[in-house]
Amino acid sequence: MSALRSDGAVVCFGEVLLRLSSPGAELLLQSPQLNICVGGAEANVAVSLATLGHDTGVLSTLPDNALGHAAHNELRRYGVDTSRIAFTPGRMGLYFLSPGAGGRAAEVIYDRAGSAFAVAQHTRTDWPGVLRGAGWFHVSGVTAALGPTIAEATIAAATEARKLGLTVSFDCNYRAKLWQAWNGDAPSILSQLLAQSDLVFGNERDMTLILGASFTDARTAAQSAFAAFPNLKLMAGTSRTQHSVNRHALSAALHTRNGVIETPPVDVTGIVDRIGAGDAFAAGLIHALRTNFEDAAAIRFALGAACIKHTIPGDFSLASAADIEAFLAADLSVRR
Amino acid sequence: MSALRSDGAVVCFGEVLLRLSSPGAELLLQSPQLNICVGGAEANVAVSLATLGHDTGVLSTLPDNALGHAAHNELRRYGVDTSRIAFTPGRMGLYFLSPGAGGRAAEVIYDRAGSAFAVAQHTRTDWPGVLRGAGWFHVSGVTAALGPTIAEATIAAATEARKLGLTVSFDCNYRAKLWQAWNGDAPSILSQLLAQSDLVFGNERDMTLILGASFTDARTAAQSAFAAFPNLKLMAGTSRTQHSVNRHALSAALHTRNGVIETPPVDVTGIVDRIGAGDAFAAGLIHALRTNFEDAAAIRFALGAACIKHTIPGDFSLASAADIEAFLAADLSVRR
Amino acid sequence: MSALRSDGAVVCFGEVLLRLSSPGAELLLQSPQLNICVGGAEANVAVSLATLGHDTGVLSTLPDNALGHAAHNELRRYGVDTSRIAFTPGRMGLYFLSPGAGGRAAEVIYDRAGSAFAVAQHTRTDWPGVLRGAGWFHVSGVTAALGPTIAEATIAAATEARKLGLTVSFDCNYRAKLWQAWNGDAPSILSQLLAQSDLVFGNERDMTLILGASFTDARTAAQSAFAAFPNLKLMAGTSRTQHSVNRHALSAALHTRNGVIETPPVDVTGIVDRIGAGDAFAAGLIHALRTNFEDAAAIRFALGAACIKHTIPGDFSLASAADIEAFLAADLSVRR
Amino acid sequence: MSALRSDGAVVCFGEVLLRLSSPGAELLLQSPQLNICVGGAEANVAVSLATLGHDTGVLSTLPDNALGHAAHNELRRYGVDTSRIAFTPGRMGLYFLSPGAGGRAAEVIYDRAGSAFAVAQHTRTDWPGVLRGAGWFHVSGVTAALGPTIAEATIAAATEARKLGLTVSFDCNYRAKLWQAWNGDAPSILSQLLAQSDLVFGNERDMTLILGASFTDARTAAQSAFAAFPNLKLMAGTSRTQHSVNRHALSAALHTRNGVIETPPVDVTGIVDRIGAGDAFAAGLIHALRTNFEDAAAIRFALGAACIKHTIPGDFSLASAADIEAFLAADLSVRR
Amino acid sequence: MSALRSDGAVVCFGEVLLRLSSPGAELLLQSPQLNICVGGAEANVAVSLATLGHDTGVLSTLPDNALGHAAHNELRRYGVDTSRIAFTPGRMGLYFLSPGAGGRAAEVIYDRAGSAFAVAQHTRTDWPGVLRGAGWFHVSGVTAALGPTIAEATIAAATEARKLGLTVSFDCNYRAKLWQAWNGDAPSILSQLLAQSDLVFGNERDMTLILGASFTDARTAAQSAFAAFPNLKLMAGTSRTQHSVNRHALSAALHTRNGVIETPPVDVTGIVDRIGAGDAFAAGLIHALRTNFEDAAAIRFALGAACIKHTIPGDFSLASAADIEAFLAADLSVRR
Amino acid sequence: MSALRSDGAVVCFGEVLLRLSSPGAELLLQSPQLNICVGGAEANVAVSLATLGHDTGVLSTLPDNALGHAAHNELRRYGVDTSRIAFTPGRMGLYFLSPGAGGRAAEVIYDRAGSAFAVAQHTRTDWPGVLRGAGWFHVSGVTAALGPTIAEATIAAATEARKLGLTVSFDCNYRAKLWQAWNGDAPSILSQLLAQSDLVFGNERDMTLILGASFTDARTAAQSAFAAFPNLKLMAGTSRTQHSVNRHALSAALHTRNGVIETPPVDVTGIVDRIGAGDAFAAGLIHALRTNFEDAAAIRFALGAACIKHTIPGDFSLASAADIEAFLAADLSVRR
Repeated sequence: MSALRSDGAVVCFGEVLLRLSSPGAELLLQSPQLNICVGGAEANVAVSLATLGHDTGVLSTLPDNALGHAAHNELRRYGVDTSRIAFTPGRMGLYFLSPGAGGRAAEVIYDRAGSAFAVAQHTRTDWPGVLRGAGWFHVSGVTAALGPTIAEATIAAATEARKLGLTVSFDCNYRAKLWQAWNGDAPSILSQLLAQSDLVFGNERDMTLILGASFTDARTAAQSAFAAFPNLKLMAGTSRTQHSVNRHALSAALHTRNGVIETPPVDVTGIVDRIGAGDAFAAGLIHALRTNFEDAAAIRFALGAACIKHTIPGDFSLASAADIEAFLAADLSVRR
Repeated sequence: MSALRSDGAVVCFGEVLLRLSSPGAELLLQSPQLNICVGGAEANVAVSLATLGHDTGVLSTLPDNALGHAAHNELRRYGVDTSRIAFTPGRMGLYFLSPGAGGRAAEVIYDRAGSAFAVAQHTRTDWPGVLRGAGWFHVSGVTAALGPTIAEATIAAATEARKLGLTVSFDCNYRAKLWQAWNGDAPSILSQLLAQSDLVFGNERDMTLILGASFTDARTAAQSAFAAFPNLKLMAGTSRTQHSVNRHALSAALHTRNGVIETPPVDVTGIVDRIGAGDAFAAGLIHALRTNFEDAAAIRFALGAACIKHTIPGDFSLASAADIEAFLAADLSVRR
Repeated sequence: MSALRSDGAVVCFGEVLLRLSSPGAELLLQSPQLNICVGGAEANVAVSLATLGHDTGVLSTLPDNALGHAAHNELRRYGVDTSRIAFTPGRMGLYFLSPGAGGRAAEVIYDRAGSAFAVAQHTRTDWPGVLRGAGWFHVSGVTAALGPTIAEATIAAATEARKLGLTVSFDCNYRAKLWQAWNGDAPSILSQLLAQSDLVFGNERDMTLILGASFTDARTAAQSAFAAFPNLKLMAGTSRTQHSVNRHALSAALHTRNGVIETPPVDVTGIVDRIGAGDAFAAGLIHALRTNFEDAAAIRFALGAACIKHTIPGDFSLASAADIEAFLAADLSVRR
Repeated sequence: MSALRSDGAVVCFGEVLLRLSSPGAELLLQSPQLNICVGGAEANVAVSLATLGHDTGVLSTLPDNALGHAAHNELRRYGVDTSRIAFTPGRMGLYFLSPGAGGRAAEVIYDRAGSAFAVAQHTRTDWPGVLRGAGWFHVSGVTAALGPTIAEATIAAATEARKLGLTVSFDCNYRAKLWQAWNGDAPSILSQLLAQSDLVFGNERDMTLILGASFTDARTAAQSAFAAFPNLKLMAGTSRTQHSVNRHALSAALHTRNGVIETPPVDVTGIVDRIGAGDAFAAGLIHALRTNFEDAAAIRFALGAACIKHTIPGDFSLASAADIEAFLAADLSVRR
Repeated sequence: MSALRSDGAVVCFGEVLLRLSSPGAELLLQSPQLNICVGGAEANVAVSLATLGHDTGVLSTLPDNALGHAAHNELRRYGVDTSRIAFTPGRMGLYFLSPGAGGRAAEVIYDRAGSAFAVAQHTRTDWPGVLRGAGWFHVSGVTAALGPTIAEATIAAATEARKLGLTVSFDCNYRAKLWQAWNGDAPSILSQLLAQSDLVFGNERDMTLILGASFTDARTAAQSAFAAFPNLKLMAGTSRTQHSVNRHALSAALHTRNGVIETPPVDVTGIVDRIGAGDAFAAGLIHALRTNFEDAAAIRFALGAACIKHTIPGDFSLASAADIEAFLAADLSVRR
Repeated sequence: MSALRSDGAVVCFGEVLLRLSSPGAELLLQSPQLNICVGGAEANVAVSLATLGHDTGVLSTLPDNALGHAAHNELRRYGVDTSRIAFTPGRMGLYFLSPGAGGRAAEVIYDRAGSAFAVAQHTRTDWPGVLRGAGWFHVSGVTAALGPTIAEATIAAATEARKLGLTVSFDCNYRAKLWQAWNGDAPSILSQLLAQSDLVFGNERDMTLILGASFTDARTAAQSAFAAFPNLKLMAGTSRTQHSVNRHALSAALHTRNGVIETPPVDVTGIVDRIGAGDAFAAGLIHALRTNFEDAAAIRFALGAACIKHTIPGDFSLASAADIEAFLAADLSVRR
């Protein structure tokens, strides 16, 4: 479709987290057991892309203890290049999850303040060094939101990536609480990131924040973004209606400078785990763009990637392209 | 709303049971493991009310062994005052549950005959003593149904409670099998309990039994009950349609001497555990009445309390008022 | 209804398998644990029929090791006569299952090649000996598909059964992969089996394969089968629409030489485990026929047996006749 | 060795119980889960003997509910003939177990009063009918201790068994609490049982109780028993030293009218589950006697059966004769 | 024995932690599951004392989220008065545990920095208010080590407690890493705490640190402590030899101003969980002192309390006085 | 120590297996659950070496299905280079394990016949290609024993490795059953492998088989091996005494052409999982040799690696060098 690069590894910059969740539909610590998985927005994108067959790497910092090494190993398990992960003294970023059920919403308790990643000296990073061999750079607004040093590093990384000819994708993923914690100037920082991006995952609310205008529809917001950011080629997003914790409807849109392609909503039933669906969407679109899908096929595939994630326990989407195609084809026959 | 007392503890009189249930959707003992929780109609009400911020106490008798003490501790865990629980030699009341799935109904095997509670000398209870500090007395028809001594004690307790100025609530909770086991005169005994009650949880079927008339709608039944029982101020009940074990619709009605407020049905999907929903409803209404909700808000809240219980494993509803309000608002966004 | 025998044991000839499935909705080996159950088409029929009160026996070969004996014991646990099971050196037939969720289909990995059953010398079987005391013989197309020796033995068994006056039922259960593995002449072999059968479980696709004609509806196919196979009295089958892994709709049809009875579709929600539903259907119909249900009641009961299986974990349907009737009556009240 | 019958089934008369135990070394209900197994002194003997290759049957009464049928199926799973088990309304006999660890002893809470077995009309049993086809009758003192009706039935059964030419074995298994509960005359009843027995499992403490003399060693006690009970041919028992919950030492003795054979103590380490070891001992000796071991080999084998039971979770000993021989040979190489 | 107060509640001041441990003997995150329990040195003492029948309260700060409330509830479950626990925004103090096995040591990863307790404004505490109704104050050196504010508060609390006539006990529990983290002057702070204490749990290494002298035996150290701290009446400690993770030997000593009582070592086998043994020892001794045991009986009981803790999963010792006595008596018979 | 290469990756050639084991001390399928891990002699060596910091790769063939990919990912998780693993149609090699307890031995059921690895066309391997970048080649006798094609390939690989200047290590690991299955000429094939080896793991029994002489001690056997195989520099082995399944004693010996170094026996208690201890020993020695330990330190370290493996669940030894040193130092203090 586009002129985006399809060679080289996809390097994802962000924090790797441990998720600790209550079993089944239990409340947190209702019974004395927690299920563990590894996650984090950028790690999720990297694992999904590795599962879809791409070279990917995570650029991060983990504590040099059993938790950090276990998280590192879990990325490696799924084929992510972990050579850009540094180990330092410190604590592991955590989040606790009660998954909810029916009309009772999921609940997340973040416990990532002061983590090895959050306090790392990211601004000392040798960006040309860590981006060597890469063709794509991906980061999300969560990373930028973790504090001034990381925000600065994120902009430096995106800038360097662009300079080196990588494609840059950015997922707005706006979380007010994180920015408020250090009084960060989200519009300014996110603008600088968008200025370096080829592809943004976001919607009218994100652009309202970033551009300081008040958008009520995604297309207008996208057009303003294209006007404001000359490097930007694509804006993509999903739209979600929740009937219950177990049943949602998702649709997606892909905006180019020429127009928008919108999918019909997909009925997502039997939801097992919604966490990471946005990251699966991002990975699905990056996969489609790197393998030269047509625009309509690309956004349809990305939506399928997001939807099937809801059926897979854990933060990671472990679906292959064939799994996603079968989902989109509504083929429910037992695979033998 | 009403002139019901909102001060003092809520004392709930009834048996505390252990529930032993098969995991997931398994049949009982299909695999060699049982999940355990603590329950019992009045204990459920007490725990719900404690979770909603009320002083509550359970008045009961438990066996003086590891099971009885574990059950006692579980009430204490959720903030229920257990100082009115006596320990005696004897056995623990149990029930076994196969939770069912889809179109296969749940199955309960009661094993409570001869329990420490069932054989306790309740008629020797020092009622003024155990009701000291209380403002509300709650009991259900299950307690009265356990045998002549308990039935007599239940009436004595309600009578004393009224004499002491407590609000008395009574949940009909009619179980034919229990009454038949000792050939108890349910209409007579339940009438005596209703005579002492300010608030009854019941419907036209209960009133048909108690008043000896044949009611086909709840409003007429309530009016007859108000006529027959001068102390009675409120009758409340829920109505349930079951689409499958996993999806029900619930509505509720609150009858006053002046009229009735009926809620629209709420679609309850993704059901995890329906046991204790009636008790959660009772607790929800008692909470609303004690915190001076308007009638319409009160019955709506009580229905929300009943509905959200279906999403929480175990007999106890552990939902806060905020959780219930979020459920009623259908707010399904992940809480962070 | 028919002139089918209702006395004597039902002997089911086929492989007994171990199923190893990932917990919950997990992918295979996503976490390091597998749940185990025993299955296999004919074993499933035998266990269902035993649960419904019939004398049943499985005719099979198992490896003489801890796995084979455990599988044998599991059949015995449910009341199946295992005296026709031989133990030989060799390996256990296995299959691995990832159960799927929502719009993600279940996935099965068969690992049964070279099993003790597959390599057994079935042609040396003393058929009159093993059929002694039996009144009914049941086999499925999976058994015939396992290789030339077994195919031959299957025909010999059905022929002998007919000669001895047993009712013969045959479930087509066509699996292309199995036949292709040894280039087996499925139409010829299945024809020979049908020639001996009183009752066949199949549909227009099966008859298209077997009769070499191209049927597009079940009734025409059944009529052709009745014409081709003079011993054949009944053809039965189900029709399935899948909304998601968790929700299907099932209907059933029973063809006689006089006409067809078709049930309306039943909405099957809250699906826990769809494996073995076809075998539960077969068992349900055999039960109905052996206990002299009217045709319409028989096919309705068989459909109920198939539907309720979806709510029971494992390959076996463990539903009693009362459970099935309650399901069909949509009685969802808690059984106490 | 002896003139004991080796043909015919071994019929074991007693209650079948469900055991509910806390996982690992936890206290009861420390976490909300219980592991379940089936047990009961005579059922344990029957399962062990079936595993050792003998025809065995359990004569018992179970509640006609999911628990009773599950217990019944578990016996059937291990090859025990369950045709002598009656199902009646009532409750299941239970016991709760906290297994202990190190220097903390195991704890058992019996909950078997009023069980279907305890209240059954055993005196109406058609003893010749139920003993048809049997060659051996086994019962323990626990059965006799459950109440006057059962005590009477136990004596009647043993008497009839002797009359019919069966070998009668009796395991004293004295439990003071059970006798005290109904003020039963243990010495008189146990004497009547011993009078019918060929083989008794007991020691000097049992004989002190039964014979009203004060024995301090087993040999003198055995000699007095032989003098008092002309039918008695053998007395066997084990002696146990407990170093910790996880390490015991066991020895055994077999008394004949001619003398005694005593084994050296066996060091039993890595104990997993000591419950049922006495029953495994009884089964081991009955096996040895029925298969004509020499006396010394018989008591050695029985001791091995008792010891290996400590390494098997659950009440049942599931060890084969080969397993027991390997244990006695201290062969710890991995079996491949 | 001593003039120590035996009336009033025991108030324990310290952090309540969640422990997250790998199942069985697994390494941390070897499989994706963690077992959870609640602990913390002072909470452990409070729970043990409550289990032994004392009024106890924990004075602490917990995060106002699901984790903090779950921890709070777990204390309440075991009968600890939690009315002195404040809830504030913040994070929960955690520690991760790999329990080890055989010759592989346990491993702990602390993750308590920045917890709600660590950052709370303890110096604003109304000490007379929180100590109202108390007769005993207990704190450990871990609490003082968490930072300058807490250290100051700890001294203030002990000083106020002494002023109010409470008995003060102090467990040195020296952890170099915690002090180094903020460069705290441990000798000075611990001295001030000891100056207020009636009873100290410690040994020659602790006194070497605190008194700045070099002690090589506990008696000399105790004598110097008695000389330095006029309020100090007792010093107690245990001595441990580790044969393996699963087998230790423990002895204990109680120093008075008049002399020392030393126990012989106890062989502790079958170790399930060693964490919290020191706290169980402290609770055992406080129990013995408050119930007027003789010195020798007191230290023996405290050692028993420490030893039996090794057999109980979790941080809390849940042993009753009867359990401890049975342990000390080496009574390993099954409790029925 | 020796002239062995310490650069380049260690390539291990062999089958990767799934292990399916019963939980705790249960018999296989006693309860319906299996724990899964990945193993195989050479994979175990590779994972241990990767954990010890070496570049390692596994050369193998796995089935192209969910099981094969899961096994592959598990190797990747622990840092093994999996680029030499081919995926082909076929089945996964399995083994079932009942771990035993106390005096009851572990039991293994192999189910690896016909696996993707066993039937792969190993002789078509491009040996120079797969050995590129490697400095060490390791294989065991189990690989050679799987059939004539693999045996031939094993020799070809070792020969090519030597030609390319790699160090070659060979673990005899003789399993009579595997050789008998295809009537393989073990002495001849193993001789050819030894002829290419620098280091052999074996003992007098292995050399008796290979050299056709009858050795009764390891030193004489080693000397004969050195005489027969000019390339051979080292022979190493362990000696094991089993007190129970849970307690062994291990010693080790390292033979050079100059002499032998023998370690004293190490008491290995609290055994959790003995499988893979021999592979951990091999990895420990290879580590020591590649990092230039002195001979005595090397064999001591290798023995420590073998011993600590007994405390780690699963086939893989996941101990770091620091863990092994702590084990050898008997340092059992809790690591904090």
